[in-house]
Amino acid sequence: MRLGTVVRDGRQIVVAATRDGLVDLTGACGFADMMAVIDGGGAALDAARAAMAQAPRIDIASAEFRAPLQPAQLRDCLAFEAHLLNAFAQARKLTGRAFDIPPVWYEQPIYYKSNRFSVIGHGQDVIWPGYSRMMDLELELAVVIGKGGRDISEARAPDHIFGYTIFNDMTARDAQMAEMAGQLGPAKGKDFDTGNILGPFILTADEVPHPAALDMRVSVNGTLWGGGNSRDMHHDFARIIAHVSASETLHPGEVIGSGTVGTGCGLELGRYLDDGDRMDLTIEGIGTLSNRIVKRAEVSRQDRDQS
Amino acid sequence: MRLGTVVRDGRQIVVAATRDGLVDLTGACGFADMMAVIDGGGAALDAARAAMAQAPRIDIASAEFRAPLQPAQLRDCLAFEAHLLNAFAQARKLTGRAFDIPPVWYEQPIYYKSNRFSVIGHGQDVIWPGYSRMMDLELELAVVIGKGGRDISEARAPDHIFGYTIFNDMTARDAQMAEMAGQLGPAKGKDFDTGNILGPFILTADEVPHPAALDMRVSVNGTLWGGGNSRDMHHDFARIIAHVSASETLHPGEVIGSGTVGTGCGLELGRYLDDGDRMDLTIEGIGTLSNRIVKRAEVSRQDRDQS
Repeated sequence: MRLGTVVRDGRQIVVAATRDGLVDLTGACGFADMMAVIDGGGAALDAARAAMAQAPRIDIASAEFRAPLQPAQLRDCLAFEAHLLNAFAQARKLTGRAFDIPPVWYEQPIYYKSNRFSVIGHGQDVIWPGYSRMMDLELELAVVIGKGGRDISEARAPDHIFGYTIFNDMTARDAQMAEMAGQLGPAKGKDFDTGNILGPFILTADEVPHPAALDMRVSVNGTLWGGGNSRDMHHDFARIIAHVSASETLHPGEVIGSGTVGTGCGLELGRYLDDGDRMDLTIEGIGTLSNRIVKRAEVSRQDRDQS
Repeated sequence: MRLGTVVRDGRQIVVAATRDGLVDLTGACGFADMMAVIDGGGAALDAARAAMAQAPRIDIASAEFRAPLQPAQLRDCLAFEAHLLNAFAQARKLTGRAFDIPPVWYEQPIYYKSNRFSVIGHGQDVIWPGYSRMMDLELELAVVIGKGGRDISEARAPDHIFGYTIFNDMTARDAQMAEMAGQLGPAKGKDFDTGNILGPFILTADEVPHPAALDMRVSVNGTLWGGGNSRDMHHDFARIIAHVSASETLHPGEVIGSGTVGTGCGLELGRYLDDGDRMDLTIEGIGTLSNRIVKRAEVSRQDRDQS
């Protein structure tokens, strides 16, 4: 099942994708939001499946999407070797210095935490952050945690996955490169309003044999930039969940990104985004996550300051 | 005013510290939690002040503290030069290699984001994470955001601070050192249940002239380890708030740590914690945040897996 969130008559509702449209699961099953489905577990998914045929239909062409859920917390990994190799080759071109993948990368998943508040959905505009001149996208697969837990074993980790979605981890490369010399990882390079895009749907885990082997591709303004397959993650999501949950409780509704698939961002290709560019990120079985990036006319500081 | 959260008859209530005890502001003013005080703004603080004399008294000796608030999000900076110089001197001793503070550190605040779920309060035990043999504490001053905003200027930033609290940023140094070679900053070195301690009180901003110049000190088992003064932050909280909020909305209830004060952690001194150690972190005007770190008898994986 593919589940999403759209705005209908001024409020957000949970929808499921059919072959040719959407159906309203909030109307059919009473789900307040995606967290209600997640918290409802197998029984909620059974109820959703049973309601599909009779649920109110919604025209997908006019649907106004939001992120499928607002993550309780958002982590992002770095699991594709090809992404690192390509990025380091570009860095070598720029600096003349050689960069090697550190041994620890092969030994354990490496991750950081994103701003959970800056999440938007399919079709919403990314607002170009004022401090950047070098904007990029990143094509990632993400898991949504369904069942919480701590010290989750790799063997049981797949049972904790509610589903899979597309994550476009927008990045201000200039800010990222500057601040990462400070050794604490990315901050303003990733943290700005509208910088984390999820959607359009969550593909439920029952439809994705573990480990996920899904084709991924990214186009900008209709031109293919790159892509790959999630089977090439050096650490799969079971390993990632086991690592993250060591002595640490994972909660339902947390989201974890795979990291950029090889050739899944402009940095690897020496390309960057321009004002108005349209980004289309497709992952097999989930759909296509499409957004524009736009520079907005600046509003006065006072208007934005909420003061 | 010094505001905190304690458990009373099985539920959490907001309290204020008096000269010799606590008073119940939930009983006196109806505050559901600290966020209700923050969202209530100046009027809520006025109501709290007016109620202090008549509010129900609580014996501080028997009070069971919790974190003053569960942060909406938790960032941590690295603002004290002395901390870096001391830490790098230790690293040089261990490795024979020289480490220099990167120029970007002087130019802008450097920060990462913590796990907002792993927050505990004064008097609660820190559970030693199973994967670490090298546990450390970090003495930090933190601000609690009161009024949200975006593109907040340094001049207006102090108006967005609700108050100041003590932050003990517990760290698994072995995990941190291993993973930071992966370039994305600290992860499991900081992310484990009970790893972020806040409290015992939030000292409201009206009692702290900006920039905060508060004495800080840390003791372990009654022996002074180190300390300093928050005036020595190279980037003060106004600069930090301006930096973080650039093109990014800060929300009420978010918490931002200063980073470790010079000599405010064991790493700088070549010391580490042992099972059962008692940590006392004191900041002028706020109080003393006291916790033990304990290794727990392992429970079975199945019990912890919630499955």
